[in-house]
Amino acid sequence: MEHAGTERTGLFFTEMHTPGAGLVLKVTRTLVHKRTKFQELAVLETAEFGRMLVLDGCVMLTERDAFIYHEMLVHPALMFLRGKATEVAVIGGGDGGTVTELVKYPEIKKILLVEIDPEVVAAAREFLPEVAAGLADPRVEVHHQDGFKFLQSHEHEFNLIFIDSPDPVGPAEVLYTEEFYRRAKGALRPGGLLALQSESPWYQRALVKQIYGNLKAIFAQVRLYLAHIPTYPGGVWAFALASDQELRRNERPLPGGLRYLNEEMLSHLFALPEYLRHELD
Amino acid sequence: MEHAGTERTGLFFTEMHTPGAGLVLKVTRTLVHKRTKFQELAVLETAEFGRMLVLDGCVMLTERDAFIYHEMLVHPALMFLRGKATEVAVIGGGDGGTVTELVKYPEIKKILLVEIDPEVVAAAREFLPEVAAGLADPRVEVHHQDGFKFLQSHEHEFNLIFIDSPDPVGPAEVLYTEEFYRRAKGALRPGGLLALQSESPWYQRALVKQIYGNLKAIFAQVRLYLAHIPTYPGGVWAFALASDQELRRNERPLPGGLRYLNEEMLSHLFALPEYLRHELD
Repeated sequence: MEHAGTERTGLFFTEMHTPGAGLVLKVTRTLVHKRTKFQELAVLETAEFGRMLVLDGCVMLTERDAFIYHEMLVHPALMFLRGKATEVAVIGGGDGGTVTELVKYPEIKKILLVEIDPEVVAAAREFLPEVAAGLADPRVEVHHQDGFKFLQSHEHEFNLIFIDSPDPVGPAEVLYTEEFYRRAKGALRPGGLLALQSESPWYQRALVKQIYGNLKAIFAQVRLYLAHIPTYPGGVWAFALASDQELRRNERPLPGGLRYLNEEMLSHLFALPEYLRHELD
Repeated sequence: MEHAGTERTGLFFTEMHTPGAGLVLKVTRTLVHKRTKFQELAVLETAEFGRMLVLDGCVMLTERDAFIYHEMLVHPALMFLRGKATEVAVIGGGDGGTVTELVKYPEIKKILLVEIDPEVVAAAREFLPEVAAGLADPRVEVHHQDGFKFLQSHEHEFNLIFIDSPDPVGPAEVLYTEEFYRRAKGALRPGGLLALQSESPWYQRALVKQIYGNLKAIFAQVRLYLAHIPTYPGGVWAFALASDQELRRNERPLPGGLRYLNEEMLSHLFALPEYLRHELD
């Protein structure tokens, strides 16, 4: 830990993850800070994590650690899917990071990105070009629409659906209900797979449990897994896979060049710490 | 994430993990805050993590997440040791948390805790009685002595040595050198095992690599593993095992009642994320 010379004056971003605990990041430049039709949006340059996208005061991603989140949301789903992934939907994820991982798979023919707020996509394209790079792929279609409504109008269309949603406050709350997961299942082809970011197992254990329970009510197979993400609440994040098919490693190789996930981690992806495993029994 | 009603006034503890990133915790009560002969010591009651021990401005442990650190420092060593663990030394760890995990093993006959600062031990006994509970075990001897000197005067005496040290600033710097590890090896019986906390793989990757390299120069077998610890820098922490014997799961069962480690996690303990694995090749 560095103490000498720690600069304590200037602009600091603080996100309180609970009323009693939070993250503080030194901000060196404000690239954009505005209110869109849907939310407060900022892209800030930080001293430690590069550029950072903030929505309604919560860190969505930083350039430095977003690779963990996006690799861990996307690649396990591809590695546990039975059959081909040709049609894929991403609900949320307007920053493009999830899409950028998806375009690494030539078998995918079409990726529909459903982000309600066009200004998130525009900010990512302008200020986070590496994260958003995949948005330029010709297979990608961006729909600025409500995720729930989108799924209602797409019956049995996708092999894979990703829920890359913000936290369940305000308009995103519906994305955590059993009804929403039922809708997602309706938009999947038979045997398709739903992959979800599932919040902090440290601070929001009841919510993680609720997501798991809601998924179990609808899908035959549900598994949770974790990754450590330094700028996310508690430094640890949960993800879920849900399908009516068995969740077993398929023959697909992982794409090259990953910085977090590897085959050895994949072989025990669903091992959970006792404090969480216990809750799911 | 909770936003409404977030209390932003009052006493806050801030630890900057780098000049640009840190942790902020609301403090509800100061139990002790003083300068000892060796360091600045505080035990603070926090709103989110219960009581917290702070040395020289760095979180050493909190009641809420210390179980992860202590379980992950202690039990893997016991699970990978060949032969009996009868004599054990702990360098640092004056809070007693490591000892409290160790006393769960009836085969251990003697535990020497070597903590240079008696006031750390006294504060833990007074303010963190659950963490420090193991210190009351009759097999435990507390030595207030420099760890390096202690090891010099104990030749081939221990089956297991734990390095439960603070960060490598000031007097603790020596605890990260090849010379120190050589000394530790001299204090181990043939086939003994050294277990070490090894800092943050996120913020201190160069240091983790240095620890690994220094250990490799001295021990035939060295493996790193990680655990997520919310109040530690980056939310993720590295540990190391080093021995001249093969590091393979032995027949010992894990003690009951653990809250983090389980057999499934143990079976792939040494799987590391690419960003770290890469550095160790």
